[in-house]
Amino acid sequence: MEARHVVIGIDIGGTTTALGFVDRHGEVLAKALLPTQGQEPAQELVLRIFDSIQDLRKNHPVQLKVEGVGIGVPNANHAKGTVENPVNLSWGESTDLAGLVRMHQNLPVAVTNDANAAAIGEMLFGGAQGMRDFIVITLGTGLGSGIVANGELVYGNNGDAGELGHTLVDPEGRQCNCGNRGCLETYASATGLCRTVSVLLAEMGEPSELRSVSLAALTAKQVSAAANAGDPIALAAFDRTARVLGMKLADAVAHTGPEAIFLFGGLAAAGDLLFKPTREYMDRFMFPAYRGKVQLLPSGMAKGSSAVLGAAALIWNELG
Amino acid sequence: MEARHVVIGIDIGGTTTALGFVDRHGEVLAKALLPTQGQEPAQELVLRIFDSIQDLRKNHPVQLKVEGVGIGVPNANHAKGTVENPVNLSWGESTDLAGLVRMHQNLPVAVTNDANAAAIGEMLFGGAQGMRDFIVITLGTGLGSGIVANGELVYGNNGDAGELGHTLVDPEGRQCNCGNRGCLETYASATGLCRTVSVLLAEMGEPSELRSVSLAALTAKQVSAAANAGDPIALAAFDRTARVLGMKLADAVAHTGPEAIFLFGGLAAAGDLLFKPTREYMDRFMFPAYRGKVQLLPSGMAKGSSAVLGAAALIWNELG
Repeated sequence: MEARHVVIGIDIGGTTTALGFVDRHGEVLAKALLPTQGQEPAQELVLRIFDSIQDLRKNHPVQLKVEGVGIGVPNANHAKGTVENPVNLSWGESTDLAGLVRMHQNLPVAVTNDANAAAIGEMLFGGAQGMRDFIVITLGTGLGSGIVANGELVYGNNGDAGELGHTLVDPEGRQCNCGNRGCLETYASATGLCRTVSVLLAEMGEPSELRSVSLAALTAKQVSAAANAGDPIALAAFDRTARVLGMKLADAVAHTGPEAIFLFGGLAAAGDLLFKPTREYMDRFMFPAYRGKVQLLPSGMAKGSSAVLGAAALIWNELG
Repeated sequence: MEARHVVIGIDIGGTTTALGFVDRHGEVLAKALLPTQGQEPAQELVLRIFDSIQDLRKNHPVQLKVEGVGIGVPNANHAKGTVENPVNLSWGESTDLAGLVRMHQNLPVAVTNDANAAAIGEMLFGGAQGMRDFIVITLGTGLGSGIVANGELVYGNNGDAGELGHTLVDPEGRQCNCGNRGCLETYASATGLCRTVSVLLAEMGEPSELRSVSLAALTAKQVSAAANAGDPIALAAFDRTARVLGMKLADAVAHTGPEAIFLFGGLAAAGDLLFKPTREYMDRFMFPAYRGKVQLLPSGMAKGSSAVLGAAALIWNELG
């Protein structure tokens, strides 16, 4: 029986690492999850990743010919193959992740952040197939972005373009982890939504079940559930989040003129609660020439495998 | 004697049209100016342009072999070769400018707006030689922009990317010609600077020679001259303009991660008055990972010929 040509897609998150074998058409042939254990050195994680890969391979019914390895990881530098000053991993200033992986598997390795991987995944296997200009926004704890222009991911001069989460909403605004104030991700993210609830609880007089939840305990899922049940504070929080996000997405459109913007990640699961008002605000604040020409879409990648698919797409894209 | 290989670069402005023969190295072999007469149909202008080209050719001592025609013109659509709803030309909804030119000279023709032409000019013949990621901002009556990422101009899905002049500074801000409020170009442009003087004359108590000039009569050059003479209102106007511009350039950096941003056009002639505070504000509002890595530079193209050079670069770039 002929060997199947695959790549290994690895998504390293703060808590969990997902990996899998993915063929050129985006079929995931086998996958596994392991704890990231971010307090350990990177070498340890890479060792455990390759143990897991050996197991998957051994147990797979078909022979797999691996062509390369794609990795999505926070604070990645694509040009150097490194991870630099990651917030949730105790790896230090700079880790040559591509080099560590090549010690186990001497193959082409590509490393980028999760939002860039999501963008390439969307282009190869998701809703952006056939598009040459689009943007992917990941809405989780923070806000990440991957920009594709002229059919290519925009890496920028230092391999770290696409930080829309740190565009400015208000110079006197909310404190951001990056050290600046008023960054977009302090408003438009799971965390930002909860912070907005906290503001609205103070501003508004309406009764709300969210009044009895502490900000530390509040989750975006709770806010979504409350909004779906008609809670006025939760609904106002989504509207205010959508206004800020729509405004800054209109700005993003004025940069690269995309055909579509995809919202991806935890907060995007809120569906119409988020998409409907964001679409309206984005159109309202948009340069008239673009109005009505830019779609706001959910990810078109297979749910549950999207992070691995994105990482795999990264290396498939480079293998050509 | 051997023929010189050249292209024709044409810059169509609201008042004046400049054209010239430009070789592959950016040498302008001959050039001419003619009035645009924007109230006439496009055909008339194209006729007069080619009359002028014939004259230049006839009088040139060396035989010229023309390889193509590049045109910078407001409201150009690069993908279609058209000019659409130009504000300062009575050409109507859509004019097939590339087609009109090809009736005179059956050669490759490329059409784009002046800011995109300036960006390609900077890349081939100016300060961006060797750069793969940079942005050109043109500061005149309005604010135009051309974005280069991965070594290619970003045209976007509809051929009209790079409208940074219409990114949002303040949703309740100044009325813009585009119909929206608070667009960047209502603050950061020659016109925007004068509007800011008008605001500051009301806000501040200091004496100023600008108090005796009407807003209709005021020019950015006058504001520059006053600032250079120490006028407090004029100095404050430059500072406030630089703050808004620096803030939005920091946002632009977070999109495409450029190596440099070039300021081009009338207002850029203010030199340090504009560059120094804009650099400071841009760095202050920038995502920390980019800080200190993005240069803010004046155009490196030959003064007086830059518009023709940009238009010529556009077509040289496409001829490969």
